[in-house]
Amino acid sequence: MADTVIDLNADLGEGFGRWTLTDDEALLSVVTSANVACGFHAGDPTTMRRVCGWAAERGVRIGAQVSYRDLAGFGRRAMEVPPEELADEIAYQIGALEVFARAAGSRVAYVKPHGALYNRVVADGGQAAAVVAGVVRAGALGAASGGGPLPVLGLPGSELLRAAGAAGLPVVAEAFADRAYTAAGTLVPRGRPGAVVEDAEAVLVRAVRMARDGQVTAATGEEVPVRARSLCVHGDTPGAAALAVRLREALTAAGVRVEPFV
Amino acid sequence: MADTVIDLNADLGEGFGRWTLTDDEALLSVVTSANVACGFHAGDPTTMRRVCGWAAERGVRIGAQVSYRDLAGFGRRAMEVPPEELADEIAYQIGALEVFARAAGSRVAYVKPHGALYNRVVADGGQAAAVVAGVVRAGALGAASGGGPLPVLGLPGSELLRAAGAAGLPVVAEAFADRAYTAAGTLVPRGRPGAVVEDAEAVLVRAVRMARDGQVTAATGEEVPVRARSLCVHGDTPGAAALAVRLREALTAAGVRVEPFV
Amino acid sequence: MADTVIDLNADLGEGFGRWTLTDDEALLSVVTSANVACGFHAGDPTTMRRVCGWAAERGVRIGAQVSYRDLAGFGRRAMEVPPEELADEIAYQIGALEVFARAAGSRVAYVKPHGALYNRVVADGGQAAAVVAGVVRAGALGAASGGGPLPVLGLPGSELLRAAGAAGLPVVAEAFADRAYTAAGTLVPRGRPGAVVEDAEAVLVRAVRMARDGQVTAATGEEVPVRARSLCVHGDTPGAAALAVRLREALTAAGVRVEPFV
Amino acid sequence: MADTVIDLNADLGEGFGRWTLTDDEALLSVVTSANVACGFHAGDPTTMRRVCGWAAERGVRIGAQVSYRDLAGFGRRAMEVPPEELADEIAYQIGALEVFARAAGSRVAYVKPHGALYNRVVADGGQAAAVVAGVVRAGALGAASGGGPLPVLGLPGSELLRAAGAAGLPVVAEAFADRAYTAAGTLVPRGRPGAVVEDAEAVLVRAVRMARDGQVTAATGEEVPVRARSLCVHGDTPGAAALAVRLREALTAAGVRVEPFV
Repeated sequence: MADTVIDLNADLGEGFGRWTLTDDEALLSVVTSANVACGFHAGDPTTMRRVCGWAAERGVRIGAQVSYRDLAGFGRRAMEVPPEELADEIAYQIGALEVFARAAGSRVAYVKPHGALYNRVVADGGQAAAVVAGVVRAGALGAASGGGPLPVLGLPGSELLRAAGAAGLPVVAEAFADRAYTAAGTLVPRGRPGAVVEDAEAVLVRAVRMARDGQVTAATGEEVPVRARSLCVHGDTPGAAALAVRLREALTAAGVRVEPFV
Repeated sequence: MADTVIDLNADLGEGFGRWTLTDDEALLSVVTSANVACGFHAGDPTTMRRVCGWAAERGVRIGAQVSYRDLAGFGRRAMEVPPEELADEIAYQIGALEVFARAAGSRVAYVKPHGALYNRVVADGGQAAAVVAGVVRAGALGAASGGGPLPVLGLPGSELLRAAGAAGLPVVAEAFADRAYTAAGTLVPRGRPGAVVEDAEAVLVRAVRMARDGQVTAATGEEVPVRARSLCVHGDTPGAAALAVRLREALTAAGVRVEPFV
Repeated sequence: MADTVIDLNADLGEGFGRWTLTDDEALLSVVTSANVACGFHAGDPTTMRRVCGWAAERGVRIGAQVSYRDLAGFGRRAMEVPPEELADEIAYQIGALEVFARAAGSRVAYVKPHGALYNRVVADGGQAAAVVAGVVRAGALGAASGGGPLPVLGLPGSELLRAAGAAGLPVVAEAFADRAYTAAGTLVPRGRPGAVVEDAEAVLVRAVRMARDGQVTAATGEEVPVRARSLCVHGDTPGAAALAVRLREALTAAGVRVEPFV
Repeated sequence: MADTVIDLNADLGEGFGRWTLTDDEALLSVVTSANVACGFHAGDPTTMRRVCGWAAERGVRIGAQVSYRDLAGFGRRAMEVPPEELADEIAYQIGALEVFARAAGSRVAYVKPHGALYNRVVADGGQAAAVVAGVVRAGALGAASGGGPLPVLGLPGSELLRAAGAAGLPVVAEAFADRAYTAAGTLVPRGRPGAVVEDAEAVLVRAVRMARDGQVTAATGEEVPVRARSLCVHGDTPGAAALAVRLREALTAAGVRVEPFV
């Protein structure tokens, strides 16, 4: 058996003030990378500080989960933001998070877009370039303290990863064990029947096959290759933390090392 | 005549999206320190980037003008924010600005509270301590790149400067040439008759006396000492930029060197 | 036994976008008056519409739960809002809710301040007058369709009810079965030991005594009179809906009719 | 010469808190219909009250200028808002404005979308239907006080006016004297050369031809028919109020009566 390694990432800190959503402490005991909300779709400063503190204590990497500015829509409504504005909004969010990561003795180690922005930059080269420009802009912060360019986490084959690579940023591909794939290796769009794999056992099997074998069974039955250095674990559903624990155990039992990508 | 030096600071970047308020480019050609709005009372990311760029080009120091979270009230409405939350909100704003300061080749060089927060921390030790805690928290960002503790700019004798000094932060006192002073050396509260000196010539004379002689004539006629390393120039009134130019010329003509404090 | 009647009110619709807080449907099957969040501390338009629809179906009265503009602080941070601005903000919220109440075939039947504003107008006559001015201003809306002045729900003895009465608005006093009272008949401030009655059985007993006998046992042992036409049921704690059901049953079993006040 | 009549509408109240944009008082002495911002792209409650008061005093009709929720982008960034949410957001804004219109002794007399939403509903039938659903929903408010369905003001040939008509709402077409038209009678998109007619004299001539003759000269030279009951006057440019005065005088001199459409 080849030596295999996988990262587990989850969206965390997605409350806002009085409201909470994700079971941050529980998930931070399982995942290796935390996509921390930065205040544009969720995430108030105090939540950001706490999540960064917990992540740093556990050696979990801190990523900036950047979004359109849309608290009312939780960043799930696509917006036509002019590229320069979008780049600045991305940079702003990364800087705000960096303060709390540093105060916790860690640093922002990567960037991952959220929600509608994540979906948009799969195919929209212009918005993808704007996100990358924002990441590069924020890179001056890390560079001042000896850091290198910030990695970008996203969908393999996306315009985002293409643009990030072209800009000299490290790119990290992720896969979703609880999402159906097409024979072409892309995600079955949400809303289609069977787009989400509801059965927990099936999710575990798929996760192991993705991480260990680099393969997944498409919705139409074909075996298709999936190259991913990270698996995305959803944290905003009931039982999410418990499922994540089982998923990590299944990976370990299958000989997969669970380690951050950076 | 002793060798005297003074800094000129102004609130800048106080627009938001479609709305503008301050004549940023004009004022950046006059002042030596720019208090840049960070998004909580004003200041969108694109404006922050532009102002930081212009400031860096002109050698103007960049300060974080931190505020209560209150766009609708422009940060002028006092808020009972729990200390831990306030400290986190302050740190968030500093981090967001740091990104744009770094991208412009500069850095956040100091912190100054805005509006209702500025007034509050004159006498409220609890809120002052919270602001200082936020500045210290954000200091991890600068420290990572070899920077020292962030100076705090405020009113001499204020709880803010007392708390900042106690925390080991450099403190910088400022004075207001266009505000009336009491015989005790404090500001005549806004709203009282004569609280604001409207006459431009009188403002120039007062500025020179403050900077060169460390003195101002109180509203009740006494000569009172004013120790300030910086004069605050208001930027949000018509003719503000023109007055600032004349003020700088008057200072120079009187043998006062106009230089940043950091 | 005298004929006694009591209203049960609860704060509802206190989610925002992706976030939820109160179990609105369950509570709307128990209470007779729904204090609906109007968007300033919580409450997005879609939630407002749904809650109004459910309330109208069940004959539950719809009240505007008005707040300071503070989503990040859930309206729990006192703000120094100038009286005219505050009055306008109150009127704005009432108008926004009225649309959804009307669309559901009902109407806004009363107004109750939320959180920090509720606490503030207990003793602050200026802010109380501003809230009342806002309610009066919004009254033009109801008056146009034949409605009378809007009742105000609040704490007996508060400046709010005094100002409302002076302005000719109906006033409705409420009591809290799960809060400790002083010998003077006022609430023991939150934060003090024993301020909140945690024991569910004790809450039921107190509710019945308040509603049927107009009395409560103070924290210091005295029997003190409590005049209230409504009891406030908290909806944002786990088990809130179940407790509300038991409370209503206990009241009914004790011969108290549970009916709205308007 | 036939008896001709035209309405003049302008976007007003587009400040927010400390920021102002439109010269509301000056424009309210010229126009006959005021599109008042309702708080989602601009427009705080106090500004809304003032503008409604001034409009009512001058007999200017009050319209709800509804927008996507986007203060940072001034409502100029298209958003993918789910139809039900959009309808609720529209209704919310209308209700909020209705309070101030009623308090001023007037009422919301029509609805006009703003910015990106205005552009979107020209061709997007789904979003147009959502806006109309929101207007219908808000109609319950006016109906309760004897009002009829709310008219919708928009671009002739747009999906918005089609959907409004299909829903039984009165529709009002508007034209833009300072925008270039194609030979097909549609607007030359902004950003294209010559899309905006900068010359004031030319704007006056075009306004008179539109209002009196129902014709405009296309950018490509053809005479094309323009059916409009209202002309939109821009209020957010320097000299806007002065141009509006001249425009109204030119219309009157040409025998066109300037009157509201409702």
